[in-house]
Amino acid sequence: MKVDGIPRRSIQLAADGETVEIVDQTLLPHRFETRRLATLEDAATAIRDMRVRGAPLIGATAAYGLCFAVRDDPSLASIENACAALRATRPTAVNLGWALDDMKARMLALDETGRARAAFARAAEICDEDVAINAAIGENGLGLLRSAADRRTGPVNVLTHCNAGWLATVDGGTALAPVYGAHDSGIDVHVWVDETRPRNQGAGLTAWELAAHGVPHTVIVDNAGGHLMREGRVDLCITGTDRTCANGDVCNKIGTYLKALAASDNGVPFYVALPGPTIDWTAESGAELPIEERGGDEVSTATGETETGEVRTVRLTPAASPVFNPAFDVTPARLVTALITERGIAEASEEGLLSLYPERRRAAAG
Amino acid sequence: MKVDGIPRRSIQLAADGETVEIVDQTLLPHRFETRRLATLEDAATAIRDMRVRGAPLIGATAAYGLCFAVRDDPSLASIENACAALRATRPTAVNLGWALDDMKARMLALDETGRARAAFARAAEICDEDVAINAAIGENGLGLLRSAADRRTGPVNVLTHCNAGWLATVDGGTALAPVYGAHDSGIDVHVWVDETRPRNQGAGLTAWELAAHGVPHTVIVDNAGGHLMREGRVDLCITGTDRTCANGDVCNKIGTYLKALAASDNGVPFYVALPGPTIDWTAESGAELPIEERGGDEVSTATGETETGEVRTVRLTPAASPVFNPAFDVTPARLVTALITERGIAEASEEGLLSLYPERRRAAAG
Repeated sequence: MKVDGIPRRSIQLAADGETVEIVDQTLLPHRFETRRLATLEDAATAIRDMRVRGAPLIGATAAYGLCFAVRDDPSLASIENACAALRATRPTAVNLGWALDDMKARMLALDETGRARAAFARAAEICDEDVAINAAIGENGLGLLRSAADRRTGPVNVLTHCNAGWLATVDGGTALAPVYGAHDSGIDVHVWVDETRPRNQGAGLTAWELAAHGVPHTVIVDNAGGHLMREGRVDLCITGTDRTCANGDVCNKIGTYLKALAASDNGVPFYVALPGPTIDWTAESGAELPIEERGGDEVSTATGETETGEVRTVRLTPAASPVFNPAFDVTPARLVTALITERGIAEASEEGLLSLYPERRRAAAG
Repeated sequence: MKVDGIPRRSIQLAADGETVEIVDQTLLPHRFETRRLATLEDAATAIRDMRVRGAPLIGATAAYGLCFAVRDDPSLASIENACAALRATRPTAVNLGWALDDMKARMLALDETGRARAAFARAAEICDEDVAINAAIGENGLGLLRSAADRRTGPVNVLTHCNAGWLATVDGGTALAPVYGAHDSGIDVHVWVDETRPRNQGAGLTAWELAAHGVPHTVIVDNAGGHLMREGRVDLCITGTDRTCANGDVCNKIGTYLKALAASDNGVPFYVALPGPTIDWTAESGAELPIEERGGDEVSTATGETETGEVRTVRLTPAASPVFNPAFDVTPARLVTALITERGIAEASEEGLLSLYPERRRAAAG
């Protein structure tokens, strides 16, 4: 996507060919700044501090983190140490484990002298694959918005939670890919953007990237979506997911489950857009997923820009009050109308997923 | 309730006998400051700017606003002007209209010379009635917490949304009245406090008053409650309501509906505590209720305390992004396990309400 007219990805190789540039997402929407990652520690910190976030982008960043480690030391011990350090950064993102396993297997098939070069080549491929996947998700989801547009006058109203736009991926976005596709093909689309406490990825990132691209949108608090659905002001919901289980349960940013309940209660379709690599075929259902608990400061504070243009963090709660901060929840498959993937649209169920990924049926049978 | 050991009400007559003192709730939890209201305009502004909020407290403040107007000018024109000005401050709070209608009828039954004195006397009665009502709600709801405590080991976990504590009433609270009652009678109770964006009445007010009284509690973002219910970590929900319809639909702070959906989906009882005066017998269902839309700044900003102790407001959204701010939603009666009133506990239905308020049955028949 473009920023100030210049095409850029959320992570891209720098001119030196051995470091990468990321957008520091903790500063958005107030500042647009890029950062250079050059070491394993840089990559791990960027993921842990959520300078990069979103399942696909976490996977890509982890892949480069492993590249940096292998560049400095291509030994097995170095690879295993790097994988462990990167895996510990965010426990819920399945792409992270997937990217690391994929990279590691390829490294170990080579002798030490070839590993660094192969690592950078594979990391670049992972990025390009993500972009291609998201383009396909956008194409597959576009029909849903086109149908909704055909059924009504005025804009199609899409509600989304958190950020599953291009900032959450290498480029193109998952949940927002169909929205960008619709907007670019002249469909009148408007997005209700959940603010998405505690980190405000909706108010800060989704709103920012929709504004940058010129897509009409309105920011609402997380509490408001149910009311809008009751009032008939939402035509469909689309969210991303950090991890999809084999039975179609989806793990996504905390609060997604509440919106899925409201959609179900009001007959509003609730779609989840996901790249194949975010499916965790080893998790039979959401009950098995670890739910990351993050630091309490995210709940007790908010960060924004003062009237004088400084970015400041303010405490919202009494100093004496404890807080609790689970980062994700599980939306059961029964509340998901359909899954939108790079291979097409399917029911949120084991059968639905296997219809799109039949090679997994063979894997399961074998 | 006590603040720093000193008993106080959220609104109380000053020593001069003709002005009142309120707690400025916009400064909590960061500053505890009182303000003097002496004129109609003071009272209307305090309600509009939410220095006072909560249906019962709004009603009491409006009653005193009318007192001030009548003290300065006891004519019919003055009374009607004051009622119109006060009624326009917050369209959803039914107590406001109830208190004004009650006061106005009493004023008009007297000649002008007796009106001011009668007004102050009636306003004081309205305050005392609210305190008595809340004590009865606390007594009636206490059994629910006692039963929940008997069924489990460890603390009873109550989830509440917004603030329906003593700060929302003249004293004692509605939703929190049973919680205070349980805590004071030695039941081990813990409260999950929804932050309640956009104005953070949970993080700012509920947490503050629970901490002040020593009730164990934990602040969570509004997105987290559904996850906690799925995990079996909520025994019951209790919220307040700004207006209850004749069929048991409840209008309360935006987001209440989402928690009621999650409670229903997980078999968690969802109770709504309400004083009789918040029942709108003229509204057959929630579909008829006006939903107040408040200023967008509440959504685009958050206010809190910086590390250096200043209270600052920071912008969370891109300057270019529009926002929308509905203040309430309607929770349909089917999602409400029971209503807790000063007269007892009843099903959220027309029959349930009429069983507690049989005089309304006669009114309807007549």
